[in-house]
Amino acid sequence: MYGLIGKMTAHPGKRDELIAILSEGIRDMPGCQIYIVATDPSDPDAIWITEVWQTKEHHQASLQLPAVRDAITRGRPLIAGMGPYTETIPVAGHGVRRAG
Amino acid sequence: MYGLIGKMTAHPGKRDELIAILSEGIRDMPGCQIYIVATDPSDPDAIWITEVWQTKEHHQASLQLPAVRDAITRGRPLIAGMGPYTETIPVAGHGVRRAG
Repeated sequence: MYGLIGKMTAHPGKRDELIAILSEGIRDMPGCQIYIVATDPSDPDAIWITEVWQTKEHHQASLQLPAVRDAITRGRPLIAGMGPYTETIPVAGHGVRRAG
Repeated sequence: MYGLIGKMTAHPGKRDELIAILSEGIRDMPGCQIYIVATDPSDPDAIWITEVWQTKEHHQASLQLPAVRDAITRGRPLIAGMGPYTETIPVAGHGVRRAG
């Protein structure tokens, strides 16, 4: 198992546009078990992402998927900054249905 | 939707014992949609937790469940520190099956 927990900061006023692009890009990614996109009540420009993948290789391969490449291309100009960003090893838990 | 993303630091050598206690405590929590417990390759004492709840009230109510109260009682002596810790609003994503 391979995980990522990270914060992304959008340019002012661009957060929801960036979330919409991310949400399209994450459909149908092989090996992706959980992908949660969340906003932050304490920071109107922040987006928190938590990902759980079968393996690190599945995550790396996802970056070559046409939908993901397209999301990166369209989303990048809206991003003011990345981080903190942590690689994790998911070891326990449950995820029972769509998160949103 | 209500979410939490947080880091917990165990006393040296106590991380896996703390994870085992957490993993028992989180079974059968009403309104809990996703609960991911992960370790951190860069910090042998760290535990990262990502939670998705139907509402903040479901999360608050969970703290009174006997299994959760028991986990808190047994886990607290193993915890060296909490944080960073962020409340979130999950807005998109997918979670398809058990995370571990």
